[in-house]
Amino acid sequence: MRSFNFFGRFCSAFHDYPSLSKIIVVSTLSGGSLIAYAEANTNNSNRGHVAHADAITSNSIAHADANTSKKKKVVVLGTGWAGMSFLKNLNNSTYEVKVVSPRNFFVFTPLLPSVTCGKVEARSIVEPIRNIIRKKNINVSYCEAECIKIDPANKKIYCRAARATLNTNSKQGEEFAVGYDYLIIAVGAQVNTFNTPGVEGNCHFLKEIEDAQKIRKNVIESFEKASLPNLSEEERKKILHFVVVGGGPTGVEFSGELRDFVNEDVLKLYPTVQHLVKITVIEATDHVLNMFDKRITKFAESKFLRDDIDVKLGSMVTKITENEISTKAKGSDKTTSMPYGMVLWSTGIGQRPLIKDFMKQIGQGNRRALATDEWLRVEGCDNVYALGDCATINQRKVVEDIAEIFKRADKDNSGKLTVKKFTEIMDDVIARYPQVKLYMKSKRVRNFVDILTEAKGNAAKETIELSIEEFKTALSVVDSKMKNLPATAQVANQQGAYLAKCFNRMEDCEKNPEGPPRFRGTGRHRFHPFRYRHLGQFAPLGGEKTAAQLPGDWVSIGHSSQWLWYSIYASKQVSWRTRALVVSDWIRRFIFGRDASGI
Amino acid sequence: MRSFNFFGRFCSAFHDYPSLSKIIVVSTLSGGSLIAYAEANTNNSNRGHVAHADAITSNSIAHADANTSKKKKVVVLGTGWAGMSFLKNLNNSTYEVKVVSPRNFFVFTPLLPSVTCGKVEARSIVEPIRNIIRKKNINVSYCEAECIKIDPANKKIYCRAARATLNTNSKQGEEFAVGYDYLIIAVGAQVNTFNTPGVEGNCHFLKEIEDAQKIRKNVIESFEKASLPNLSEEERKKILHFVVVGGGPTGVEFSGELRDFVNEDVLKLYPTVQHLVKITVIEATDHVLNMFDKRITKFAESKFLRDDIDVKLGSMVTKITENEISTKAKGSDKTTSMPYGMVLWSTGIGQRPLIKDFMKQIGQGNRRALATDEWLRVEGCDNVYALGDCATINQRKVVEDIAEIFKRADKDNSGKLTVKKFTEIMDDVIARYPQVKLYMKSKRVRNFVDILTEAKGNAAKETIELSIEEFKTALSVVDSKMKNLPATAQVANQQGAYLAKCFNRMEDCEKNPEGPPRFRGTGRHRFHPFRYRHLGQFAPLGGEKTAAQLPGDWVSIGHSSQWLWYSIYASKQVSWRTRALVVSDWIRRFIFGRDASGI
Repeated sequence: MRSFNFFGRFCSAFHDYPSLSKIIVVSTLSGGSLIAYAEANTNNSNRGHVAHADAITSNSIAHADANTSKKKKVVVLGTGWAGMSFLKNLNNSTYEVKVVSPRNFFVFTPLLPSVTCGKVEARSIVEPIRNIIRKKNINVSYCEAECIKIDPANKKIYCRAARATLNTNSKQGEEFAVGYDYLIIAVGAQVNTFNTPGVEGNCHFLKEIEDAQKIRKNVIESFEKASLPNLSEEERKKILHFVVVGGGPTGVEFSGELRDFVNEDVLKLYPTVQHLVKITVIEATDHVLNMFDKRITKFAESKFLRDDIDVKLGSMVTKITENEISTKAKGSDKTTSMPYGMVLWSTGIGQRPLIKDFMKQIGQGNRRALATDEWLRVEGCDNVYALGDCATINQRKVVEDIAEIFKRADKDNSGKLTVKKFTEIMDDVIARYPQVKLYMKSKRVRNFVDILTEAKGNAAKETIELSIEEFKTALSVVDSKMKNLPATAQVANQQGAYLAKCFNRMEDCEKNPEGPPRFRGTGRHRFHPFRYRHLGQFAPLGGEKTAAQLPGDWVSIGHSSQWLWYSIYASKQVSWRTRALVVSDWIRRFIFGRDASGI
Repeated sequence: MRSFNFFGRFCSAFHDYPSLSKIIVVSTLSGGSLIAYAEANTNNSNRGHVAHADAITSNSIAHADANTSKKKKVVVLGTGWAGMSFLKNLNNSTYEVKVVSPRNFFVFTPLLPSVTCGKVEARSIVEPIRNIIRKKNINVSYCEAECIKIDPANKKIYCRAARATLNTNSKQGEEFAVGYDYLIIAVGAQVNTFNTPGVEGNCHFLKEIEDAQKIRKNVIESFEKASLPNLSEEERKKILHFVVVGGGPTGVEFSGELRDFVNEDVLKLYPTVQHLVKITVIEATDHVLNMFDKRITKFAESKFLRDDIDVKLGSMVTKITENEISTKAKGSDKTTSMPYGMVLWSTGIGQRPLIKDFMKQIGQGNRRALATDEWLRVEGCDNVYALGDCATINQRKVVEDIAEIFKRADKDNSGKLTVKKFTEIMDDVIARYPQVKLYMKSKRVRNFVDILTEAKGNAAKETIELSIEEFKTALSVVDSKMKNLPATAQVANQQGAYLAKCFNRMEDCEKNPEGPPRFRGTGRHRFHPFRYRHLGQFAPLGGEKTAAQLPGDWVSIGHSSQWLWYSIYASKQVSWRTRALVVSDWIRRFIFGRDASGI
């Protein structure tokens, strides 16, 4: 909790002294304190569990060099946040790691919307995976191919090399197999069109760097097209009607970027058509940014109103044709259509074909994503791990294990649980079921015992005695706070780091398990279950204003959070190269504006 | 000649004190002296003819504002060197200028080879044409479309809007007509495949920024493919065999860039395949860089030998298939084939379909390029100008006009020409026929009269008397030095500046012509004919070594000319934005190496 408290205090300092932010930006840009803080923070997330990791690793290296043939093969699928984070944190040389991905670089996805209008260059937010690999002292190789089938029975995956740019020679498209001892699936997700007709082929997405480049080119092209001499006013308006489907952080940030581009650069470059630009955001629910605090939602909506961005709430897109987009208001049967020039579809995520097939194969066919246990192991599959957007943790409910917990606590088999008895196993319960901590935090409960006293009508602690039924009722509230983790970079990053730390100490924890005791079986779990720590979330709204939702119910909106955003995003870059490039892009944009070349 | 002498002395200073170069780079990077020099140099190229331009322009602006309807329409086709230079130098507001090009940006083409391997980013060498336009005080608009037909009879061009990235709506592909009073054709050229089978579809070209991006992606892909697990040594070698067809500056520079990339970055990123790389340069003539001084050619060939770049001289490519490239040695009938991974075709230029059609239309069907007179006016077409790679100047021979020149000089109709008589018209002849100056420079003749004395066996000047036949024989040597200007950025740039200056003073020179007297007719030509001043040429050879051929037979090879290259190319950038970007790219590469992300 150290990092959490630090962060909380840090944020409150911003509230009281907004000018602090500038100092921090300066120190960030000069490679100073905040970067050091941010890096330390990531590395510490699960530091509690891996105190001896370094010592063990150095032993392992010596051990491994003597026995290279014994190295266990770890295959990592994907070079996104989860895969990169796993690789960056892995430092156990007893593994032979092979990374398989059709994309030979990592993308800093939170800056993708910045690329769409030229605030940041595409190349500034990518880092070749081989650059990350070659800095490691362990045996890691990379292979530019797409995994097309997983065969967990034979511990093999089948891959296909990516297609070439120009001609088709050079063994492209050939398939090959790779064996594994451990498989780590971190392939991410793809855009979900919800089978809406016309989305494919007419809409832009914003998942990959190429998407952002295409959008940038298309935005410029739209202004060029609208400036052609032989068009009516109506046609120009149509070309310059930008529609964003989905009022989540991506859609909102793109709208803000586009509005900034129009206000700052289009004004100078395309003065004759600037007034014809229209931006529409279509959102199916009642509010944009609905995963954020209500204050942020309200601010975003009123800012968009001022910025002349049309927000259509409670609207579903039913169909998209070459020229028109059709929507239906919630609870109404009437479909309205409007002409558009460009649509960005940013509604939600779906699973890739590889994952869909694999889920069918292992009997998870009707789930939303690959189900894993709290240790990120795919359910029903040995030695296969899944993390990031392609997986969800299928967390065990406390209520499911209530009989075992009761039995373990009720050492004298009296059938009654006192507070004293419960206190003895309380820490184990908290360690095994991450949702307990989450519940306590959300309810601001300081002590787990308070849940029991509350169930008994706030009786005095000493007098409480619960039967198994009463105990079940008391703890059932705890499971109510359980929900799937969001599909964010932050989750994937933490999962990758967690899993790497497990792998770093795999052998050691086999012998000396460090996890909580097994309530259903005997002995202890090898590791602590994965626990997500929410460090806050940003929603840039354009006009150098950002909404930030920080832990501890802190909300910060405006210019100071924009500076905080600059600081954090600069510090979180995976390499000094990208950090230098991103910062210099920001400076370049301040000085020269955005580049409007159609490349 | 002032600039020429300055340049010569400047270069000799480099020879004597190589460390000077570093001082100049520093002053360049800080926006200092050399930039000022380089800019002044460009602007001065034809300054002799346009001394009063500024004064006239300011009058014109006042005049034009009162009579906008009278503005003459100038249509410029193309946004390359010639078009950009014309626009940058035009400052007469009595015109209404419309630029038509499918490419809304200017590309600094000399740095294209640097983009292929990531020394410089694509976006750093492009400048939106609208940025160039909006800095002008005159009426210029831009239209992103391709001219598909020129109708000189009706003074109209037909255009088609460029195709869109995503869907096909928004009036894309529709045609429209644009009328003109003056048409300036500066569309450049395209790659010439010499109808070699298989070139299209299997080869990369290097004319446009997209080509350079594709090559970069393909180079990275080649290394990724060659690193796949399921290949034989033979297959890896094939994938990593890079073939360059054409040993001109582009081909040679690309080979050098690729060799640098392999030595500096591939070593770190793809250590397992680095030794398998092979680079082959195929050149049809007997030497690479054959337009350069022999010392440079020799140095380049021996450097390539040391760098393990295989140079096949006197070899013609006969066919390219998906897997093999076939060549035939000069004077032999035997065809040999070799497997390859990637081919760059950089042999020569051909005309675009638009120009081919237009040439047929105006009866120039069997020429190599659009023929213009010395004032860049297309022959047989009123008010149409052509410049850059799509045009050649069809220079009038002195011998063709010999009778008129003789008659003009022989004022007393004696049938004999003395040196005194000739001296009186000498300057007019030099002004009218640019090849005279060229001949004198190449032969190091200081005085035109020396040509006459030489023809008379170095007789004493006073005694010389020539008949018309003797005069013709004496001057015939002058035409021998006539040749087409090279298809370089330097020529296009100077032509654009020259034409802009003519347009700036068009009205004024109509009344007070400033050109040489017409020998065939009466009166004077409106303007001086275009005269090309060769300012030198670079051939970067890789390994931070560049060969520079400078005016006055100066040749400089090695690290110091590399620094000169950095200085000149930084100073010649069209905007401070691209200058800052290019310089920061160079610095970035020094610090972090090249980016190997496959985007």
